[in-house]
Amino acid sequence: MPDSIITLTTDFGEASPYVAAMKGVILGLNPAARIVDLSHRIAPQNLRHAAFFLASAVPYFPPEVIHVVVVDPGVGSDRALLYVEVGSHRLLVPDNGCWTQLADGHGTVRQVIRLAETRYWRPEVSATFHGRDVLAPVAAHLSRGVDPRELGPPVDHWACLAVPRPRRVTNGWEGEVLFVDDFGNLITNIPAAGLLSPDELVVGDVPWTGRCRWVRTYADAPRGTLVALASSTGQLEVAVVQGSAAQSLQAAMSTPVRVGWGAENREGG
Amino acid sequence: MPDSIITLTTDFGEASPYVAAMKGVILGLNPAARIVDLSHRIAPQNLRHAAFFLASAVPYFPPEVIHVVVVDPGVGSDRALLYVEVGSHRLLVPDNGCWTQLADGHGTVRQVIRLAETRYWRPEVSATFHGRDVLAPVAAHLSRGVDPRELGPPVDHWACLAVPRPRRVTNGWEGEVLFVDDFGNLITNIPAAGLLSPDELVVGDVPWTGRCRWVRTYADAPRGTLVALASSTGQLEVAVVQGSAAQSLQAAMSTPVRVGWGAENREGG
Amino acid sequence: MPDSIITLTTDFGEASPYVAAMKGVILGLNPAARIVDLSHRIAPQNLRHAAFFLASAVPYFPPEVIHVVVVDPGVGSDRALLYVEVGSHRLLVPDNGCWTQLADGHGTVRQVIRLAETRYWRPEVSATFHGRDVLAPVAAHLSRGVDPRELGPPVDHWACLAVPRPRRVTNGWEGEVLFVDDFGNLITNIPAAGLLSPDELVVGDVPWTGRCRWVRTYADAPRGTLVALASSTGQLEVAVVQGSAAQSLQAAMSTPVRVGWGAENREGG
Repeated sequence: MPDSIITLTTDFGEASPYVAAMKGVILGLNPAARIVDLSHRIAPQNLRHAAFFLASAVPYFPPEVIHVVVVDPGVGSDRALLYVEVGSHRLLVPDNGCWTQLADGHGTVRQVIRLAETRYWRPEVSATFHGRDVLAPVAAHLSRGVDPRELGPPVDHWACLAVPRPRRVTNGWEGEVLFVDDFGNLITNIPAAGLLSPDELVVGDVPWTGRCRWVRTYADAPRGTLVALASSTGQLEVAVVQGSAAQSLQAAMSTPVRVGWGAENREGG
Repeated sequence: MPDSIITLTTDFGEASPYVAAMKGVILGLNPAARIVDLSHRIAPQNLRHAAFFLASAVPYFPPEVIHVVVVDPGVGSDRALLYVEVGSHRLLVPDNGCWTQLADGHGTVRQVIRLAETRYWRPEVSATFHGRDVLAPVAAHLSRGVDPRELGPPVDHWACLAVPRPRRVTNGWEGEVLFVDDFGNLITNIPAAGLLSPDELVVGDVPWTGRCRWVRTYADAPRGTLVALASSTGQLEVAVVQGSAAQSLQAAMSTPVRVGWGAENREGG
Repeated sequence: MPDSIITLTTDFGEASPYVAAMKGVILGLNPAARIVDLSHRIAPQNLRHAAFFLASAVPYFPPEVIHVVVVDPGVGSDRALLYVEVGSHRLLVPDNGCWTQLADGHGTVRQVIRLAETRYWRPEVSATFHGRDVLAPVAAHLSRGVDPRELGPPVDHWACLAVPRPRRVTNGWEGEVLFVDDFGNLITNIPAAGLLSPDELVVGDVPWTGRCRWVRTYADAPRGTLVALASSTGQLEVAVVQGSAAQSLQAAMSTPVRVGWGAENREGG
């Protein structure tokens, strides 16, 4: 039963017929497949958004689920399409590194196969929609029990996406905003574990020291307060209680963030 | 079979991995669960939106479905998480009153249990994402047949959300906009039953008397006409045919609305 | 198994409880139904959007799936509700022509039935929400095996939606933008088949000749380049690589488009 679950993650939005066409192709080949939408709101062609999303969502799924990811600026070029196994998770992805952040954090890469066997594809493959013409039918075939090794040859090289790493500095960390959620919360790449209540916070080039409270959860401070806390995925998060930190701090993906503590940093920023 | 349906209603939006993480947790514990998205577009932390939504949607579902609701401004505080049975409907909710409007209109409260048995939760519970760490796994366990009484102790007090009540006044009603739908239609809290074609309508502090037609359905008036009618949920609705009343009338949730009839009110507003 | 799949396509958006209410009604009558969201982001009351969407998505689905479409500016008027079979596809639609573009391209109309047998409807039918009160319960009954001929009488007239046709002109085509996807790509009604690399492109009244490259896929040109290519549905598409053509060219649905080739057109536009 679980092996017939297929999830979809795309940057298609929902006004267009693209997601629907993929669902049709999957159900045409395996009417018993259970399709689960993860998101169709990845920012257009934004591989870092896709990478963060997959690293934060896929680990919660059981093995055998097939995750189809279509964030694919290189569609139709000679970039490959891949079947990958990361730990116990199975994904079908363009070879653009969208899945390597997941692999960094959540298990070894067990198998990578380049999709090559066209008999598992739609008979006609367009130059601009491999989600519908290759990944959807391959997912349907996998969900019916096709062995991944039938899909094409194993490969041992693939594109990696450079995920920005935070830097440990004297009495603090320098990093950046990895993701802004729909509440406007800023999820950074700075690990929250071991962060003692810092007394310095700089977002962009604006020091918020003294105006930001370190809390355990949003409800620990009154509405409108700027707070720093551990995100649900273990990173430093900057939020405005029942408001939008992205708006208040004019911050976005990639905005630099610095936290520190100790007197020698107190004038920093 | 029906008892394996789990619905999700959140204010998460769809760019973030939060909804996906919840789906992963549910399917990890019960791969046979059938997850149905109700909405992830509840306005952030807006309990009145959540309350209206649940009162208008849940009654149409069959018993045994498990409705998970994550609109949770108090996450991580000492507010409880609850399992509630309203009539034949079963919900998992934060104890913030999001479900009491449903109970007002659609059946008696049959059982309220405070989630306390951590063996049905994820082993590690974050301070900011109880949807993923508590409600999702509890929903999965319920869908596999766990008796709700195993989840924790029954309680007889819970938070109630004050739903704004309309006031009957001489020759009319005073109320407010309960909800603005995606068309820009204004759904008010004034009951439509028994409303005879009113000759006075005030929205905000603007009298629309004479410029508004009372109709049975949108198509009864030409495009662009301001109309008043009975909403599909039985309240007074103010709409612009194939347009947006919210925009035309500069109205939003909580905007006051007055309807009346009879000569003595004709100069009102 | 496949006959219990019901898809939903609406213009409801996701903040309102309307989609959820329909899902509740369906599951109330057939808890085993598998509901698949196609889109709830059809532009409000926009039949041409609905028509393009259905023509581009439905053909990929297997037979026996039931497609429920609620884009219904005439709700509550005397417009009929229909069960239609187009080729092997089955739809439940308002009689407003939203499905006739699908029929133009993808198979003969095999059966059209006017929904009349109220025993398959909800007991009380509102004047403004036939999706919930008529189409959803009828879909559920169909998914349980009710014969379509029990739903009402066959009809041989129905509303047709005029789809704008492109015009073949000397050395080129004149058409218009049929659809703008979430990337801002312009999908036109001009057939891509047989289009040789044109050397003239006019969008709106702006000639882009010389600034537009004819490519096979987006990745064939650098980021920011204006390109023309064959869309994944076989029409001429105008795009900006990793950008928005809609924004760059100030184009929208219905904006005129002209392509041509040959010296005599080179000064055109």
